[in-house]
Amino acid sequence: MCCERSVAIEHFADRLLAACDAKGPVCVGLDPVFGRLPIALQDRAPHEAIEAFARAVIDAVADHVAVVKPQIACFERYGADGYGAYERVVDAAKQRGLIVIGDAKRGDIGSSSSHYAAGLLANPRGADALTVNSYLGDDGLEPFVRLAAEEGKGLFVLVRTSNPGGDALQTLELADGRTVAEAVADMVAQLGERYAGDAGYSCIGAVVGATKTAEQQSLRHRMPRQLFLVPGFGAQGGTAEGVRGCFDGEGRGAIITASRSVIYAFDQTSADWQSSIAEAAIELRQQIQEIIAR
Amino acid sequence: MCCERSVAIEHFADRLLAACDAKGPVCVGLDPVFGRLPIALQDRAPHEAIEAFARAVIDAVADHVAVVKPQIACFERYGADGYGAYERVVDAAKQRGLIVIGDAKRGDIGSSSSHYAAGLLANPRGADALTVNSYLGDDGLEPFVRLAAEEGKGLFVLVRTSNPGGDALQTLELADGRTVAEAVADMVAQLGERYAGDAGYSCIGAVVGATKTAEQQSLRHRMPRQLFLVPGFGAQGGTAEGVRGCFDGEGRGAIITASRSVIYAFDQTSADWQSSIAEAAIELRQQIQEIIAR
Repeated sequence: MCCERSVAIEHFADRLLAACDAKGPVCVGLDPVFGRLPIALQDRAPHEAIEAFARAVIDAVADHVAVVKPQIACFERYGADGYGAYERVVDAAKQRGLIVIGDAKRGDIGSSSSHYAAGLLANPRGADALTVNSYLGDDGLEPFVRLAAEEGKGLFVLVRTSNPGGDALQTLELADGRTVAEAVADMVAQLGERYAGDAGYSCIGAVVGATKTAEQQSLRHRMPRQLFLVPGFGAQGGTAEGVRGCFDGEGRGAIITASRSVIYAFDQTSADWQSSIAEAAIELRQQIQEIIAR
Repeated sequence: MCCERSVAIEHFADRLLAACDAKGPVCVGLDPVFGRLPIALQDRAPHEAIEAFARAVIDAVADHVAVVKPQIACFERYGADGYGAYERVVDAAKQRGLIVIGDAKRGDIGSSSSHYAAGLLANPRGADALTVNSYLGDDGLEPFVRLAAEEGKGLFVLVRTSNPGGDALQTLELADGRTVAEAVADMVAQLGERYAGDAGYSCIGAVVGATKTAEQQSLRHRMPRQLFLVPGFGAQGGTAEGVRGCFDGEGRGAIITASRSVIYAFDQTSADWQSSIAEAAIELRQQIQEIIAR
């Protein structure tokens, strides 16, 4: 248990599970792209437009989902101005009571990872959780893990990504019979073992793509204490069957995340685009709740 | 050849090799950490202090080395203010005629990688080259590759990192006898094959740690057209033998990078700390040139 020394800090996994129990295990990805915004927002500078749009999406979905996941690349595209917009979007989502997963996929040697952890995850500016990359191994992840454990934050380590090209490295077979993704899963399970909350889940979770149906049972088995962040549902082709295997027997332990299929569910010329986004978020939540109830 | 359509744009590898021929194949890493700065700089806000320090390092080493490599994590630690400092440091180094490798280790699915490429690599704000992570496979790298090929920029894909924890994933043996790092090396060689410059080297290079002596011959053999960016010399324990194998028979094709052993080569209370950094850069260059000459 990571938080015994500081009872005031709630464990990330317990906080996330409670939010998902209340509002459904669904996350809306905030991937704002200037050219896809409502026409009405395109009269300002791009970094201002994507910030305004992301804030509007937050307002539209805050009553319907538990979690949002801003994609920092969309903001970094506009340099320091965009980076400031990202920080304000994270803050706006936290103010609305949403849990915020910064989709940063950072990973470096330990000394550099400690800087990323301080900038992107530590209070008060940081997100509640961060996606991270394990290619540099456990000493590269350790500063993120330590900060998550000490400050009630979460991590989602890339294990099996939803994109087609992910196969190139992640599905390679090892001499011991595992795939590379399974070896990373074992590393993540071991890293996260010490940091379980009251509900049995660790603050160190895993990214497992919705499109990788055949592998989900194996990955769930290897990572029984990991929350799964599951991208690729909807626009990338993930299906109901493709996400059912990510949940535990009680329908917990996974968060299904959709970006483009929700945040661009509008006609760019419509004045009522926020309502369309809210409806898409509600529909996503219903779809996932039906899948869990099966 | 990637630049046939636009003869005005010089190929990154040719530009880098010419710079290394002139000034030695040496790169100084800019990893500014507030608590390690000269006392005289610590009276200002951290993001201002690290910017001032990085600019002073650039001035101290610009006559002695060809390349600098700002570590973006050190700047992101201070949020949007730090990000702005990173951008100004990149610009200052380019103004001094240095080739700038942004040490960002970014990697995501294709749509997100295209945003990172636009923000961190595209003109006029971007660095000359970027370090990137291959865990998401070729479609995640493709936007970086396309931009590098079209705009005369470079990439260094993480293949074998210098940190101890890198072994956990990178040295795993595959069923076909290769290691994970060798499989990534083959992917990088294939990705970069189409993009060779006049000297035969591709604009798609590789990061290969100086501490991994035993593997360098194999990696050089697998990636004959890749420039190697070689971290870990000095502070991390890399030796002369550990870098010799990264160069080709003519002593070209690799850039040895050192950060802490150069940029912190001073007494924090000394007024003459810039001279100490310049001396450390000159010594590093001499060491590497002696190794090549053997």
